[in-house]
Amino acid sequence: MVTDIPDIVIGRLPIYLRTLYRMAEEGSKTNTSSHDLGERLGISSAQIRKDLSHFGEFGKQGTGYNIGYLISQLEQILKLQEEWPVVLIGAGYLGHALAHYHRFQLHGFHIGWIFDDDPAKLGRVMNGLPVQHTDELEAVIQREGVRIAILAVPAGAAQQITDRLVAAGIRSILNYAPISVSVPADVHVQYSDPVVQLQRMTYYL
Amino acid sequence: MVTDIPDIVIGRLPIYLRTLYRMAEEGSKTNTSSHDLGERLGISSAQIRKDLSHFGEFGKQGTGYNIGYLISQLEQILKLQEEWPVVLIGAGYLGHALAHYHRFQLHGFHIGWIFDDDPAKLGRVMNGLPVQHTDELEAVIQREGVRIAILAVPAGAAQQITDRLVAAGIRSILNYAPISVSVPADVHVQYSDPVVQLQRMTYYL
Repeated sequence: MVTDIPDIVIGRLPIYLRTLYRMAEEGSKTNTSSHDLGERLGISSAQIRKDLSHFGEFGKQGTGYNIGYLISQLEQILKLQEEWPVVLIGAGYLGHALAHYHRFQLHGFHIGWIFDDDPAKLGRVMNGLPVQHTDELEAVIQREGVRIAILAVPAGAAQQITDRLVAAGIRSILNYAPISVSVPADVHVQYSDPVVQLQRMTYYL
Repeated sequence: MVTDIPDIVIGRLPIYLRTLYRMAEEGSKTNTSSHDLGERLGISSAQIRKDLSHFGEFGKQGTGYNIGYLISQLEQILKLQEEWPVVLIGAGYLGHALAHYHRFQLHGFHIGWIFDDDPAKLGRVMNGLPVQHTDELEAVIQREGVRIAILAVPAGAAQQITDRLVAAGIRSILNYAPISVSVPADVHVQYSDPVVQLQRMTYYL
């Protein structure tokens, strides 16, 4: 296990992978280069070569990277060669959209359980999954060994649910609640807040 | 207009603002400090002071920042004191969730039009807005002077729609399509791809 690789480098690997999948789908060529990848992504080819060099030698001077091989290497680095079970908390409009998002399954993330504590939502079925009460959260996570959660609850509930998720064994949280949550050092949180993303761009208008 | 401020600094301002709004809502105190803010955000107080110092002196040694004043200053820097009209393209599950997301309106982003090219979706009403054909995109953007778009279309349609948005006058795009799009230098794109965000965390599992 390679360690001490900056998180910002890890964060770019899924972007490279997404572009490689797309190249593989297009099927027009079997090899690519850091230059090609960089062009598609608006990232310098030197940056891409430097990022990948943290993990080994994946290409050859002159012929570049074999697309299929680089995909399999990146999948291995990012531990994507197994299926990851995922719990989804929050069955509102956003939870509904996430429950139906087909790309999770396509990429090995299986949302297997949806939770909410709103009596009006309990028992509703979203993409084949019944909405369960959050009381059952810990039991499911522990029984199924789930490590990944998607949080689509209001800001006011987010920290409390996060604490319960972490205590039950969750180590990766994709947080859609508009609040920064506190977690222990061994738990990773990614944030998604469309308001924050829009506000970051109005500066330039 | 202050220039040459790193985009990563601009990107943190909405996070500070979100936390300040929350402090104001809690109402327990009128002042805060870079230390308080840092604790809530898991960011060092030195980083916060350095980020804010790009824009002026907002606090006083000893008493810290007045929450209301710092909010108004950040809103001014980020141009949030006006209402921004927004077009939404894509009326699938995600578009539906975005159309109903109440925090846009709360923070001055008004989704005024929803577009799709799927005949089955045209005329459906989402949160009071009828889904219009994408043929009308350019006319609406130009007539209404819209600068901001939210893109919730499949990957295959994203670049073509982006080109049309940019040609019609859009300068900020929040892109939910799982693909990197090419835009001119004066157009800003923010990406939101939950698969990429999950893949970035499995590395650590």
